[in-house]
Amino acid sequence: MKIGFLGLGNMGAPMALNLLKAGHQLTVFDLADTAVASLAEAGATPVDGPRAMAGSDVELIVTMLPAAAHVRAVYLGEAGLLANVGKGVMLADCSTIDPHTAREVAAAAARQGNPMVDAPVSGGTGGAQAGTLTFMVGGSEADFAAIRPVLEKMGRNIVHCGGAGNGQVAKVANNMLLGISMIGAAEAMALGVSLGMDAKVLAGIISTSSGRCWSIDTYNPYPGVLDAAPASRGYTGGFGTDLMLKDLGLATEAAKMARQPVLLGAAAQQIYQAFSMQGHGGLDFSAVIKLYTKAAG
Amino acid sequence: MKIGFLGLGNMGAPMALNLLKAGHQLTVFDLADTAVASLAEAGATPVDGPRAMAGSDVELIVTMLPAAAHVRAVYLGEAGLLANVGKGVMLADCSTIDPHTAREVAAAAARQGNPMVDAPVSGGTGGAQAGTLTFMVGGSEADFAAIRPVLEKMGRNIVHCGGAGNGQVAKVANNMLLGISMIGAAEAMALGVSLGMDAKVLAGIISTSSGRCWSIDTYNPYPGVLDAAPASRGYTGGFGTDLMLKDLGLATEAAKMARQPVLLGAAAQQIYQAFSMQGHGGLDFSAVIKLYTKAAG
Amino acid sequence: MKIGFLGLGNMGAPMALNLLKAGHQLTVFDLADTAVASLAEAGATPVDGPRAMAGSDVELIVTMLPAAAHVRAVYLGEAGLLANVGKGVMLADCSTIDPHTAREVAAAAARQGNPMVDAPVSGGTGGAQAGTLTFMVGGSEADFAAIRPVLEKMGRNIVHCGGAGNGQVAKVANNMLLGISMIGAAEAMALGVSLGMDAKVLAGIISTSSGRCWSIDTYNPYPGVLDAAPASRGYTGGFGTDLMLKDLGLATEAAKMARQPVLLGAAAQQIYQAFSMQGHGGLDFSAVIKLYTKAAG
Amino acid sequence: MKIGFLGLGNMGAPMALNLLKAGHQLTVFDLADTAVASLAEAGATPVDGPRAMAGSDVELIVTMLPAAAHVRAVYLGEAGLLANVGKGVMLADCSTIDPHTAREVAAAAARQGNPMVDAPVSGGTGGAQAGTLTFMVGGSEADFAAIRPVLEKMGRNIVHCGGAGNGQVAKVANNMLLGISMIGAAEAMALGVSLGMDAKVLAGIISTSSGRCWSIDTYNPYPGVLDAAPASRGYTGGFGTDLMLKDLGLATEAAKMARQPVLLGAAAQQIYQAFSMQGHGGLDFSAVIKLYTKAAG
Repeated sequence: MKIGFLGLGNMGAPMALNLLKAGHQLTVFDLADTAVASLAEAGATPVDGPRAMAGSDVELIVTMLPAAAHVRAVYLGEAGLLANVGKGVMLADCSTIDPHTAREVAAAAARQGNPMVDAPVSGGTGGAQAGTLTFMVGGSEADFAAIRPVLEKMGRNIVHCGGAGNGQVAKVANNMLLGISMIGAAEAMALGVSLGMDAKVLAGIISTSSGRCWSIDTYNPYPGVLDAAPASRGYTGGFGTDLMLKDLGLATEAAKMARQPVLLGAAAQQIYQAFSMQGHGGLDFSAVIKLYTKAAG
Repeated sequence: MKIGFLGLGNMGAPMALNLLKAGHQLTVFDLADTAVASLAEAGATPVDGPRAMAGSDVELIVTMLPAAAHVRAVYLGEAGLLANVGKGVMLADCSTIDPHTAREVAAAAARQGNPMVDAPVSGGTGGAQAGTLTFMVGGSEADFAAIRPVLEKMGRNIVHCGGAGNGQVAKVANNMLLGISMIGAAEAMALGVSLGMDAKVLAGIISTSSGRCWSIDTYNPYPGVLDAAPASRGYTGGFGTDLMLKDLGLATEAAKMARQPVLLGAAAQQIYQAFSMQGHGGLDFSAVIKLYTKAAG
Repeated sequence: MKIGFLGLGNMGAPMALNLLKAGHQLTVFDLADTAVASLAEAGATPVDGPRAMAGSDVELIVTMLPAAAHVRAVYLGEAGLLANVGKGVMLADCSTIDPHTAREVAAAAARQGNPMVDAPVSGGTGGAQAGTLTFMVGGSEADFAAIRPVLEKMGRNIVHCGGAGNGQVAKVANNMLLGISMIGAAEAMALGVSLGMDAKVLAGIISTSSGRCWSIDTYNPYPGVLDAAPASRGYTGGFGTDLMLKDLGLATEAAKMARQPVLLGAAAQQIYQAFSMQGHGGLDFSAVIKLYTKAAG
Repeated sequence: MKIGFLGLGNMGAPMALNLLKAGHQLTVFDLADTAVASLAEAGATPVDGPRAMAGSDVELIVTMLPAAAHVRAVYLGEAGLLANVGKGVMLADCSTIDPHTAREVAAAAARQGNPMVDAPVSGGTGGAQAGTLTFMVGGSEADFAAIRPVLEKMGRNIVHCGGAGNGQVAKVANNMLLGISMIGAAEAMALGVSLGMDAKVLAGIISTSSGRCWSIDTYNPYPGVLDAAPASRGYTGGFGTDLMLKDLGLATEAAKMARQPVLLGAAAQQIYQAFSMQGHGGLDFSAVIKLYTKAAG
């Protein structure tokens, strides 16, 4: 299958490379010339923008963009994909954006006969490189079935979440809970240690009790508890605090539109924001435990 | 081993029964005559108070009391256990209280030569009856080893958490995180459903993602997601909101004494308090999702 | 001065009437025909949209619209004001919107030679009718001086807040603090009364102490404390909970864009949202005390 | 009137001096010898403890102690005031403690025929020296009338709050609202400035709008807005963050006992706790704005 790939950043570039490795013909575009050059060297064909990509003979276009404003411009602009793409070409947007915009773009695509799914990912740049991403996909059964084989070249876990926009809903709900759990884990670990417990013993007990969660048993924020966690390497790598902030911003914005309260979700957003203001936005989000303990600093 | 058991409430009575079933001679006391009568019928020997129990020929006394004030009175009062017990008799307090009081009582016991552990439990009345409780035990290695065989008659998972008071620390830290996670799970489920997702699909996705936690995969608060969860039987049974409130009160109090911030822990306490004020204190704590959705009501 | 007035809702209509009463020639437009008819009856000249209004011989156009999306459409659309207005015509937007959009529109106006201020109001529909509104005005000294006399026909307190957008900043900051203070006042009153104090005595003491604030001494949320407050007439009239929610949404959104934490501001937004979900969005925002007390219900 | 004064700390010592200056015979005690020596030099008669003070021929005993535990010991201990004082001697406890303990002690005093009021103060060490404190008094009308003339020697504003304990309730409710308002003021000021407003202009606008409060118009947390505020002298002097933390601890504890939610009160407590953990517990509580802005640091 001939595929177009638009958006070759830290996530998009390795994803596109995995499609090349899987044998697909690839047409690519990014505003950054060096990103395009790097893919071209690996065998992809550059084009000079969304209009040109839409006009090439691709069967599927995958996009991986920073935010909803870019998605709107690339899909809905005059020189964008929908205004220039042939009927029947499939579209998959892997950007993490708000469900509302995702549904608006998908509806526009549907009106002119282009199957479209929203397919945000989790797994980070490591997962993008290894081809082990999780894709949360919103769209019809038929569109999901058609696009799934391509997503499987880039990920290991391809989940159908329901109709258009539901991929974004699943991601936003999961990541809001993750953001809350991590702060909860940080508070529980910091409290336990300050009251005299050994951090590893405490993590072990909670891991087999009702407080069990990914933020305790897989990504513990306390230094030295888990060798593989960012906490044990100075909170480098991993999922940056400012990226978590972006996702919590999407969650609270979606909640506002749905007139749905999210008391802890909003509190978590503000706590990460306060932490980021202190200069730590580039650290892994589990570093938020620094707000709770001098020892972990 | 001859054992004394003091405190025969909803938890204490079935725990004492399991010790009887295991063949121990049991001396019992409770302020409620009917509770004592019921154990006596099953073969236990009643005494008329802590002083009498301390004066009988027991080798170990187990206590299961509602709050720290009762523990202080029973252990430290003039007619209490420590003032009247023989040197060497072992003590195990299974009450859930603050770590500070637990350490104060344990230190008093140690000074007069009585080995003591704090051993709060999780698992609820169901676990107490089935003998499948988890015991979180604080005390020396030697005392833990000596008392463990008795605890194994009442529970399945006996965890050594470190020195005196650490059983309480572990429980308080775990339950604070549980209280936070459950509200986080409620917010994520309610938000996802209000944005158009199917509750079971959403729960399934989060269960295999980074938002995974016991409150999602084992005790999901959304009705109909898990057949065995209280949410699927009108939030009856389970762990009452007012019991969660008590544990969060212990957590924030311990945090205050340790000068340790717990922003989400304190927020969770207040949210359950607001929910309890609306008349729902007797419902399982996962019913807190009612604050977030009309559908779940 | 010949004035155009666009947006004749609950606030806009009485404001426009006050300009008529002051002797101004008025050209008006609203999507609702009845609103236009009512103003026409009072002496205003209807036009059929922003383009027509921009094309008439007005010297100043005042707009009063529900949200930023409407402001964008009316000012920046192809058939909107800026595309069709003559150079030099002054513009005053009295809508409450985010500072970012206000500045974007003001900059576009400035580029084509139209003096513009943002001038959101406080004082409610009562103040609009009585002509006693407060206007918080953002724009240059010269533009403020030029437009001020017209605003004085509609309000009593005309405050210059600095450059373009600062009117919106002042309103958003004030109303966020108001939203927080009201909940704080509700918690303090409910706590004091539940601990045995008389509500009027408590309000009197706080009114002369360091907890003093408008939400205690002028708009007390406890029923019966102040005869003139909405609390003493079933929380009818006043400033609706859903309007406070809109303003807190603007505040947290502006904070997000400025990367500025607002922990209590975000908490307040969520508390009003939870209250609104329980069916009280139409009540005065001081009714939020119902979350804290059965007696006040 | 012959008066006993027990507790000669930063607040008690200048209060006692004002009673001396007003011509009262004064008997004094404190655990710190230097504090006693200083008062003795000024004309007071030292005694060696509560028992001795109760046994001297005083007509009124005033106490000013750090916390409820000291009040319990001084009043209820075997060597304490109640066990040794003659019937009819009046008692006034000016300590800031929880209402529950205040009522328990007052009830014990009443049972043995000693009139007692709780009379916590506000106004700080400056007010104590100048004799301009506010006293919030709980007790019967008769006891209030009898003790008021003495309190007027130490303060300017003597407020009767109702029956026993209500002085503490008023203080706890006022200070909880103050703690919330100050953080709200800090968030509003920091947000407004980060969005481009001048701090003085913003403070001026809010001071005449619905966000008006003592924390804005009298004690503004932004440096340079009010010359007399701690913010304009590096947050020295004033009311320390750790003292605000103590009062918020009393408020949330009282709320817990009353089963009353205080969502923002608890959030405020945690925010000051986080700020204190960063090493700022000794700064005036308005320094909490440092959590919200680099400029204010």
